[in-house]
Amino acid sequence: MRTDSVPQPPASGAAIVLQAAAAAGVSVCFANPGTTEMPLVGALDQVPGVRAILGLFEGVCTGAADGYGRMLGRPASTLLHLGPGLANGLANLHNARRARTPILNIVGDHASWHLKYDAPLTSDIKSLARPVSAWYRSVEAAGQLWQDTVDGIQAALAAPGGVATLVVPVDFQQRPAPVQARRDVATPAAPAFDEARVGEVQGALESGRAVVFLLGDRALSERGHIAAGRIAAATGARLFSETFPARTERGGGLPDIDRLPYFPEAAIAALKDAVVVLAGALAPVAYFGYEGLPSELAPADALVTLALPGEAADLALERLADRLNAPSLPTPPASLPYSVPDGPLTPQAIGRLLSNALPPQAIVSVEGGTCGYPFVTASAQAAHHTILTNTGGAIGQGLPVALGAAVACPERRVFALQSDGSAQYTIQSLWTMAREHLPVVMLITSNRRYGILQTELGRNGIEPGPQARRLTLLDDPPFDWPALAQGYGVPALVASTTEELRQALAQALEHTDGPLLIEMRLA
Amino acid sequence: MRTDSVPQPPASGAAIVLQAAAAAGVSVCFANPGTTEMPLVGALDQVPGVRAILGLFEGVCTGAADGYGRMLGRPASTLLHLGPGLANGLANLHNARRARTPILNIVGDHASWHLKYDAPLTSDIKSLARPVSAWYRSVEAAGQLWQDTVDGIQAALAAPGGVATLVVPVDFQQRPAPVQARRDVATPAAPAFDEARVGEVQGALESGRAVVFLLGDRALSERGHIAAGRIAAATGARLFSETFPARTERGGGLPDIDRLPYFPEAAIAALKDAVVVLAGALAPVAYFGYEGLPSELAPADALVTLALPGEAADLALERLADRLNAPSLPTPPASLPYSVPDGPLTPQAIGRLLSNALPPQAIVSVEGGTCGYPFVTASAQAAHHTILTNTGGAIGQGLPVALGAAVACPERRVFALQSDGSAQYTIQSLWTMAREHLPVVMLITSNRRYGILQTELGRNGIEPGPQARRLTLLDDPPFDWPALAQGYGVPALVASTTEELRQALAQALEHTDGPLLIEMRLA
Repeated sequence: MRTDSVPQPPASGAAIVLQAAAAAGVSVCFANPGTTEMPLVGALDQVPGVRAILGLFEGVCTGAADGYGRMLGRPASTLLHLGPGLANGLANLHNARRARTPILNIVGDHASWHLKYDAPLTSDIKSLARPVSAWYRSVEAAGQLWQDTVDGIQAALAAPGGVATLVVPVDFQQRPAPVQARRDVATPAAPAFDEARVGEVQGALESGRAVVFLLGDRALSERGHIAAGRIAAATGARLFSETFPARTERGGGLPDIDRLPYFPEAAIAALKDAVVVLAGALAPVAYFGYEGLPSELAPADALVTLALPGEAADLALERLADRLNAPSLPTPPASLPYSVPDGPLTPQAIGRLLSNALPPQAIVSVEGGTCGYPFVTASAQAAHHTILTNTGGAIGQGLPVALGAAVACPERRVFALQSDGSAQYTIQSLWTMAREHLPVVMLITSNRRYGILQTELGRNGIEPGPQARRLTLLDDPPFDWPALAQGYGVPALVASTTEELRQALAQALEHTDGPLLIEMRLA
Repeated sequence: MRTDSVPQPPASGAAIVLQAAAAAGVSVCFANPGTTEMPLVGALDQVPGVRAILGLFEGVCTGAADGYGRMLGRPASTLLHLGPGLANGLANLHNARRARTPILNIVGDHASWHLKYDAPLTSDIKSLARPVSAWYRSVEAAGQLWQDTVDGIQAALAAPGGVATLVVPVDFQQRPAPVQARRDVATPAAPAFDEARVGEVQGALESGRAVVFLLGDRALSERGHIAAGRIAAATGARLFSETFPARTERGGGLPDIDRLPYFPEAAIAALKDAVVVLAGALAPVAYFGYEGLPSELAPADALVTLALPGEAADLALERLADRLNAPSLPTPPASLPYSVPDGPLTPQAIGRLLSNALPPQAIVSVEGGTCGYPFVTASAQAAHHTILTNTGGAIGQGLPVALGAAVACPERRVFALQSDGSAQYTIQSLWTMAREHLPVVMLITSNRRYGILQTELGRNGIEPGPQARRLTLLDDPPFDWPALAQGYGVPALVASTTEELRQALAQALEHTDGPLLIEMRLA
């Protein structure tokens, strides 16, 4: 911790907040500001180092901050307008909370002396923010602005990471702030693991019992994959990734680790009678509760924790592999492109064609079941890439997360594999991608329905009548995707066959100055 | 209250909720359901009387319920998916709270026995709902489902009206519900007023002091307007409407009642040195707090309350007019169309052309300052119409409210006078309008900027640098409005001159089978 005792020139409170954020490495602000954020907006031009990116809707901003934080491990900030602006960003903050993404979520508020008059935009911001925030503070003293900002960033970075919501009433932004100690954010301790737990898991592996590893968080890094692959090859243990990892590496010769199945029957079967080793993952529970099926996918007494989320699950796996004397795995033969016959588009064909097309170090934001599962199945054979999935189930996450990842990693190509229904929740993402010339390739699975809801009606034993059926169909009218894209300044292609998709993907890879949308029309 | 003791056939909990809602007059459900709402979705085909309308985004559903409730005075329901679905609907529920609109806000949740496992979609729904809800309950007993639903509707209807949030865990929806008393919603007491307050206001009027009436809620009904006009003509009192009324009648020879100015300097000047009579309005406060200006636009000792929101402010005004022996006003001469010269579009020309075009009994949902004020100024001369404004300042309200008003009043033409920036927050409204063939005329003021923010930067004394300027501009890229409309199945016209807008409005009035969008390009 550094305390700078040199007197500072007078600065507005807004400038102090931005200076503190910039000093702590916050270099991007995904913003949808209003009147109560104007001093912060003005200060963006006075304080160097923070790039402002405008979203037309707050869910775009919060989802982008999530994608950014997942890729870089440090927070972007948001800038949102009081309670209602925060409310519009909550769904993607919910996902970020589940992804444990560090985010500095800045919310403006009325002047502190104006709050008691209950003007139209007044609301209980704390009640709205708490469910998604690991840390919450509303500024109460001008002399604490730097410290409040640093405390928020520190909390966002504290293992395992989370959303820090800092509310800044506009009077604290406007007024010259007193000189204040300019403390740095303390570097978080490097993630560690517990040697005793490694021994415990080794014991389980050597006991002869069936063992399944459930990998999440750092276990899904490149090192984690390699170590887990060694363990599986040496012991016969099976490996699963969490069903919806915040981030996983894949392809490029890494071991092919399946996701734990989504529906509880299949997940329970996969884990049955085995010791379940949790490596960066929490105890697996059913996504939804279904009558007659347990919520816990494995019995509590079958669980052994190797590392918690936020701990060094990857290093723990390496240590375990070494203790087992598990040999290094040979580099697998170079993966060949899938052969995909000409014909109508199917989810399997899409997964394979995208896997063929991925350039090395691509990032793929996946939202939507129709093509998500077949793609991940296929992509183990692709070049090395990073997959980001919807961690919290609040849909409308895929496009903003792709946007934020593209801002974070301008040297990598970003793909959004996105279902049509879920794309609509944050469709305004397209405009920001066009505005910022982000070369995101959006692959919209156009099946004109909420496929998952049709499945769930069936699981509920409901034979849908006209109203229920209509609530799951998006075909009246169908979306005109090329027109929507054009509306936001994004070029678009349509593919109805495998050959058309192959060509569209080739064209997309040539298009490097901005986003491109490909509507993939399923039969 | 009726208690039906005849044994009922076994029904699912979902059917009980819908039956109770339908029995209480809830006939429309604006829905964006997910897995935990499937039994309610299925029951929509089993229980007669509730029409389901799908929104692609929850803010469309909640805003539509607001517009519906403002027009009919009885609640529509929503159907939202757990905490994140509710979160996406909160901004427009905030506006509905400020409008005091009755809404039955139904939120599904995990099976009650599944909640403790903290599955991905689990969140603190109560904390999210409380800031916008006049009433909140999460179902805890299958035998109480009818009563819970009735209690919610009763609370929504209780003066002055509000949002009732009913959370229904999916297990309570699924399971057969026990026989339960089927109580009716009690008819709310007719609004009343306090004769003593009428006398007090009469005293103020007869004291010789300057008097200003601030009208809201029922004072802005047709009867309220007429009575207030009589009082003003007889006494010289001045009349203002709230700046953002939930609903006001206008035109058709009604007295021309200005809105209280938005900015505090002008509002304070308008109320200065007068007795301020509150008729269905709360004490006026500044929309935002500005340094050096008071939050209270009139001193507390200048305020006299004639009627609170929810009370019979219109009848109180009538009684006051009668006590003052204020004569009936002559019917004003038939209003003539404004003469609007050919030329580029200006906000004033737009306000006048729309006023000329309004058919009798039109409904106009107004969101956005650029054209909102000039339209309201002009529309006093138009045929009788109803204006709905943004009550809570959460933008993205105008299009959904128009949608809901069109569902509520199929015999009336609905217009949405909407700024381009604010239209983007709930742009998905277009699709539901097309799907339901709602003949809403959307007039998009295309000035490619957040005009209010440019004004507010100036008020803050900020000379915007490149980042601040860019955060207030929407011209890079500009929206292609006809393409966006086409994307959602809505025909569109573009008007850049007064003559083009005149023709577009004429065409729009002929178009009765669905929505139509007119982009009004300001110079």
